[in-house]
Amino acid sequence: MAVGVRKKPEIKPAIKNRIKEQKTALIQEEILEVAAGLIAERGFKAVTSDDISAEMGFTKSIIYYNFKNKNEILWRIFEKIDSTYSGALDAAFKAGGGPQEILRNVIRTHCMNVLSHKSWATIYIRDDHELTEAQRRIVSGNKRKYNKRIEELYQEGVLFGKFKKIPPVVAVSCLIGACNWAYTWFRPTGPLTAAEIADAYVDQLIGGVLV
Amino acid sequence: MAVGVRKKPEIKPAIKNRIKEQKTALIQEEILEVAAGLIAERGFKAVTSDDISAEMGFTKSIIYYNFKNKNEILWRIFEKIDSTYSGALDAAFKAGGGPQEILRNVIRTHCMNVLSHKSWATIYIRDDHELTEAQRRIVSGNKRKYNKRIEELYQEGVLFGKFKKIPPVVAVSCLIGACNWAYTWFRPTGPLTAAEIADAYVDQLIGGVLV
Repeated sequence: MAVGVRKKPEIKPAIKNRIKEQKTALIQEEILEVAAGLIAERGFKAVTSDDISAEMGFTKSIIYYNFKNKNEILWRIFEKIDSTYSGALDAAFKAGGGPQEILRNVIRTHCMNVLSHKSWATIYIRDDHELTEAQRRIVSGNKRKYNKRIEELYQEGVLFGKFKKIPPVVAVSCLIGACNWAYTWFRPTGPLTAAEIADAYVDQLIGGVLV
Repeated sequence: MAVGVRKKPEIKPAIKNRIKEQKTALIQEEILEVAAGLIAERGFKAVTSDDISAEMGFTKSIIYYNFKNKNEILWRIFEKIDSTYSGALDAAFKAGGGPQEILRNVIRTHCMNVLSHKSWATIYIRDDHELTEAQRRIVSGNKRKYNKRIEELYQEGVLFGKFKKIPPVVAVSCLIGACNWAYTWFRPTGPLTAAEIADAYVDQLIGGVLV
């Protein structure tokens, strides 16, 4: 091969596309993260696309290039919350053990998710009426599915003689509700870390359902 | 006394005023009740004075005759919530008993308040940012005072060797949070009554803190 006429290497189209896709995903994640923070702080209606892009140091076009409208941003935030919680639940179940160990893991992981993403919890409970009717149905179906898995676990524990005979829907709502509420008062700069609170909650809450 | 010239009896001014005051209080209570229902359902910003008076079958003037503006209505709802909860707490303490009995009463009464006034809980958690800065400070001071009394009770129970050595602020936030969350899923027409849920919550939650 003649020296000096080396052809400039061309990135293969497939790789180029993959990089582009990943970059897009990365930017979208950033937008969702920033948007969630602003929406939690100011309320969905009060936040404009301008606010989100300005907070990122971009122009507004970055938002419209990546999302159809503000509803799509909100919807993607809800999707992300649902998939994070349900993924964490899968992991807690996969870690194995008896109903008691699994329930400990479930409470801990749920609590950590609430405490690590305070803006998510705020949006999830406060802004769901900003979704469309169809979106709301999906969200409430996911929530039901999530709780149902924990209720089945609870029922199993009752059958094994491990958990108190409380209607599973009541027992689980009490466990999960206690964790959910933590977003209203937890301060990341407070004297207790999220992990310390989660551990204390696990002991207290599990203690209440054990036979 | 001559027959036929009986003087029409005059209601004493003091009594007349008391009746008038009581009537005003009654109407204001009604307005607050209806307003709370509408605000919880549609959000504070979406509800107009017209909506409230129409729901009551009155004209708008009834609202302005009784309240300066929408903010005063919201503020009075918050005051009513605070005084109801703190009154119930007083009663639970006055009923007496050791820390364990009092804590049972506290949880039960708190839970019943949440379940009996779902619209209050919705407004309290979602619409506090519609209050003025000064009003918000009062609300958060009341909330702190309420929790502090329960935390002191918890601490007493720890000293008596009745309750687990969990930081009282964590233990109490867990107990109260579980009850608070119930407003998000409780349906008065569901299979379980408020009292049944409150009883189940008391057993489950107290079980978690007993030594």
